[in-house]
Amino acid sequence: MNIGNYQLRDREESFINLNPLQTGGRTTPDARKAIISYIDGYSICDWCKGALHITTEPDIAGFLIDVSDFLGMDYALPTNGCREAKYGVMHAISKGGSILCDANMHYSSEISAERAGLKVYKVPNNGEPEYKVNPLDYAEKIEDIKKETGSYPDLVLLTHVDGEYGNLVDPKQVGKICKDYSVPFLLNTAYSSGRMEIKGKKLGADFIACSGHKSWASGGGNIGILAISEEWEEKIFKGGTNWKSKPIEILGCSSRGSSLMAMMASFPYVKERVKRWDEEVKKARYLVEELTKIDINPLGESPKNHDLIKIDTPVYDKIARGHKKKGYFLYYELKDRGIIGMKPGRTKRFKISTYGLSWDQVKYVAESFLEIGGD
Amino acid sequence: MNIGNYQLRDREESFINLNPLQTGGRTTPDARKAIISYIDGYSICDWCKGALHITTEPDIAGFLIDVSDFLGMDYALPTNGCREAKYGVMHAISKGGSILCDANMHYSSEISAERAGLKVYKVPNNGEPEYKVNPLDYAEKIEDIKKETGSYPDLVLLTHVDGEYGNLVDPKQVGKICKDYSVPFLLNTAYSSGRMEIKGKKLGADFIACSGHKSWASGGGNIGILAISEEWEEKIFKGGTNWKSKPIEILGCSSRGSSLMAMMASFPYVKERVKRWDEEVKKARYLVEELTKIDINPLGESPKNHDLIKIDTPVYDKIARGHKKKGYFLYYELKDRGIIGMKPGRTKRFKISTYGLSWDQVKYVAESFLEIGGD
Repeated sequence: MNIGNYQLRDREESFINLNPLQTGGRTTPDARKAIISYIDGYSICDWCKGALHITTEPDIAGFLIDVSDFLGMDYALPTNGCREAKYGVMHAISKGGSILCDANMHYSSEISAERAGLKVYKVPNNGEPEYKVNPLDYAEKIEDIKKETGSYPDLVLLTHVDGEYGNLVDPKQVGKICKDYSVPFLLNTAYSSGRMEIKGKKLGADFIACSGHKSWASGGGNIGILAISEEWEEKIFKGGTNWKSKPIEILGCSSRGSSLMAMMASFPYVKERVKRWDEEVKKARYLVEELTKIDINPLGESPKNHDLIKIDTPVYDKIARGHKKKGYFLYYELKDRGIIGMKPGRTKRFKISTYGLSWDQVKYVAESFLEIGGD
Repeated sequence: MNIGNYQLRDREESFINLNPLQTGGRTTPDARKAIISYIDGYSICDWCKGALHITTEPDIAGFLIDVSDFLGMDYALPTNGCREAKYGVMHAISKGGSILCDANMHYSSEISAERAGLKVYKVPNNGEPEYKVNPLDYAEKIEDIKKETGSYPDLVLLTHVDGEYGNLVDPKQVGKICKDYSVPFLLNTAYSSGRMEIKGKKLGADFIACSGHKSWASGGGNIGILAISEEWEEKIFKGGTNWKSKPIEILGCSSRGSSLMAMMASFPYVKERVKRWDEEVKKARYLVEELTKIDINPLGESPKNHDLIKIDTPVYDKIARGHKKKGYFLYYELKDRGIIGMKPGRTKRFKISTYGLSWDQVKYVAESFLEIGGD
């Protein structure tokens, strides 16, 4: 069906969706109700007290206290998304020096750093097939930067779980190194917080960036969280010179509508679901184990510690070469089986996610992949 | 009714809403359908081509061409909102110098300028009761800045229609002055584009910032537009060094969900409604004329050229002093009559908007205000 020129979308409603960008953001029924109820612009400003983060009807102020507790941090602000949280920190911190990141970082980290005038250095991964980042390598790289530029980096960033391989890196070790060198530490949790439990200060993080629409079941209006430790409040959450209540790094008020309400409505579910994280990892490991029965090679760390699965799939590539639909055959074969969420046309390497699927669905997905592979 | 801890919202559905923040953003039925259909996170990324603005399913790329035509500009990108569009320009342009704005500018313009490292200078208004900004004063102020700092400002900003008095300032004269001094010109159209027709380049604007949720019937997920003239494409829409397709000033991809779809779904209606702008102004003028039958004084320019009405209301203030509900009486009196959208507790001075109301509704609002005032 079309609205004007635009086709209506049908994914979660009718399919098993494996798109890693989308599985952790899948809305809860309460988030959907909240979005529909607060659907108009500036809907959360009905009872404005002068700024978004101090609003109490709806209780955004209370929610932000709960969220910073949940993340094991001291203060939190809503942002337009995870990248906007990262940029906010980088912009406030930047002295025009450098930032040390992991090689698996999301492109938006690199773009944010460039926008904030920071030169990007990278801790490498160990390449095919695992692409693992060793957190201990941060120390050596910090020393290298000091040697090259005369200064320590302005900031260190670690991608807690990367969006390419779903590798989980231990932030504690990076946190310790950052403390040793007195360099502030930003943990990008786009694929972790909201899925698994995170206690940021215990990990040594000064700043935590979160993605509402990637991992907090928060719907499609952009929303993220920036949580910080107390000592950084004045620098990162500073208000305008003439607008004290308006934090500069979120341009005063970030989410001006339903997206924040969606995150608030889903939050009770998110707090519960992180307790079931081990089960989510089991599902991913099960699927990988099943898939390797045919000519499919998992990429990223083994065993997996996350639901994002990247696989190298010679089995489908071989079929595609002889198929009249070419690379698109896999997309259609899966769609016929009610499975969706992979990039159409891809048969050599692709990413999927089992997050939030039932065991029955995971088993069905495994069977479907094997069946299409000719097992 | 509550969702978890949060009360469901009921405004447009059951009331005549006069909140100036909300009347121009009121969703169309098609926008509501689009939001519900694309309710999940990253829902517009199903057919990603590498960046938001080049996506063709849904046809974001085509929409952006239509929008820049509609605004009389050359290129457009979606932003997280109007303030984010303004900040994007300021950040890209800033040499750490100054920006010349009008005294009626929105706080977010000032916060954005501060974040971009620009010192803010202001063209004053003429004070009570009209608060008018004379566009010709920009020339003198530019000279003053040159004298004081040794340089012309990095950027000039004009608030086309301000959010405090609803005053409309002629951008053409500011555009001419900017051209004379070779200073780039940013026109903030948060309260104008989407309501009235704007042809930016004809007005001499280099950049146009638009608010989806304030004036484009685009719903509550943050959304705005930044439209520019051709000569600025390289500077303002520049991609990342290692991510050429990802514009730095929107951190690669801005709206990652339903908010952009809502704007796209409403766009055919917006294109039509700007043709009926004269009628909207007539409604505002009618209401002001009616209200001044009792002890109410309009603020801002007279006659009005916009639906945003600010009034000084001794009549209600006098009643409030003797009323058991004090300042809140007016809010409840109006709510009892099915009218909502003013700040509860305000009786001395407040803002309302007639945008999008039928003539019957405007007349009913006028009668209600007069009745409550004891006419």
